[in-house]
Amino acid sequence: MSLISASLWVVATPLGNPGDLTPRAAQILQEVQCIFAEDTRRAGLLCSRLGLQAAKFISLYEQNESARIGQALSFLEQGFDIALISDAGTPLLSDPGYLLVKACREAGFSVRPVPGACAAIAALMASGLPPYPFYFAGFLPRKDGSLHSFFASLAPLSATLVFYERKNRLPHVLQIAHAELGEREFCIARELTKEFEEFIFGTLGKDEEKLDDLLGEITVLIAPPKETVRSEVEEVRQILEKLLQDGLPPKKASAEAKELVSGWTAKELYAECCKLRQDKKL
Amino acid sequence: MSLISASLWVVATPLGNPGDLTPRAAQILQEVQCIFAEDTRRAGLLCSRLGLQAAKFISLYEQNESARIGQALSFLEQGFDIALISDAGTPLLSDPGYLLVKACREAGFSVRPVPGACAAIAALMASGLPPYPFYFAGFLPRKDGSLHSFFASLAPLSATLVFYERKNRLPHVLQIAHAELGEREFCIARELTKEFEEFIFGTLGKDEEKLDDLLGEITVLIAPPKETVRSEVEEVRQILEKLLQDGLPPKKASAEAKELVSGWTAKELYAECCKLRQDKKL
Repeated sequence: MSLISASLWVVATPLGNPGDLTPRAAQILQEVQCIFAEDTRRAGLLCSRLGLQAAKFISLYEQNESARIGQALSFLEQGFDIALISDAGTPLLSDPGYLLVKACREAGFSVRPVPGACAAIAALMASGLPPYPFYFAGFLPRKDGSLHSFFASLAPLSATLVFYERKNRLPHVLQIAHAELGEREFCIARELTKEFEEFIFGTLGKDEEKLDDLLGEITVLIAPPKETVRSEVEEVRQILEKLLQDGLPPKKASAEAKELVSGWTAKELYAECCKLRQDKKL
Repeated sequence: MSLISASLWVVATPLGNPGDLTPRAAQILQEVQCIFAEDTRRAGLLCSRLGLQAAKFISLYEQNESARIGQALSFLEQGFDIALISDAGTPLLSDPGYLLVKACREAGFSVRPVPGACAAIAALMASGLPPYPFYFAGFLPRKDGSLHSFFASLAPLSATLVFYERKNRLPHVLQIAHAELGEREFCIARELTKEFEEFIFGTLGKDEEKLDDLLGEITVLIAPPKETVRSEVEEVRQILEKLLQDGLPPKKASAEAKELVSGWTAKELYAECCKLRQDKKL
């Protein structure tokens, strides 16, 4: 590769749809000296499914990551580019690789992202739940006690919560979420980017039962508490405009609007009413 | 498109490197009836730079988003697929589009993510800062008072903080972050995926001055407070193994290791020592 010095390329691969591999990712995976991957057999299958003539694979998982770092650095010291991939999606986001990236940075090598699919982001961009601010947790703790404290610690946060969950532990996890977070909307995204991509919506404390037979890796979004989702200004203006057109005085219109929007004080709504009256001569 | 019913396709586009456009995104942008974009002129340039013969563009920005929803729904009702893009990267993550996605979902249409580059994720995957849990804030509040309360509210969170910042307000913002969060590591990512991609590292309260002349859109990462970054088990084991090999008894090895790792209790370290002695006969 035409690079001044060798780099570790951190390469996102598709979540399931081969059409989501970027040309740059394909090129890099074919040109590097070797590819570090969580599961070399899966990585080999992935590359052959994507039509890539890829280099040698070296396994890198939680238990051997520290040991692999020396090997990776030695490739870089010899001037060879190397890549890191995960089984699917973006490396490091709930997959191994952080120690490797950190070590390469500390040794002064460049580490370059090759962005692509990431399940958390794919879910957020299409769910219809507030896309940000959001808190991404990776996989959840195993034990019930830890799950309770995990959700309890996030309860004050006015952000969409995003995490991954395997197999059918889901109704149970969401029951614990309900106990700690109260009645919030949730969205379950599965088979993202694939033929049977599915978004399932519900409310904590009501719809957990829908989720009994889900398989595969699942991305879970939990919306922030209702009262803190502030209605968008455009939505508020439309509501106020209608109320003013109906002949309500600003004070009454603001009071009525207060029931229809969220996160706005009466004073703010009143100010918006006055602005509207001025702008549109209502 | 061979779809049972019309969909809104939420399509990620490159951050700057044309090689980051996925084949699926290219195909969809060429096949949909129209593309909703924040800035239609930029969207046109983007598509022509990417070699796409794209459909008609319709502007969608914060101030007209509610008004555009009716238009979008009417395309879908007529059976036409439509797409949503932002100026660069992943729509909705600090760009308009949330109301549109929500309205399409509420009207019962399918909304499908076409994942690709996202600046926040690109920064996280290659920075060497703890990649998760992380909290993504979008763009920061404008006023100093709000900035103070923003960082103060996130101070208890043991997560990497991610946000976007425009132009050269950065030293000032990081000074406020320092006041509320204390001495944490930070990483500034700029020109992500482009030729002059750069990651700048520093510590809050020490290195803000480095950042005086940054231009363009910037992704900022702030590491969680040091004491809560728990050392990885592999790192801990290597340290303990060395201490045991040096002849220290488990209790002394644990005590010494406590100074070298973070987030581990003496009891946990002692248990790890015992495991190591059993496994490796040290």
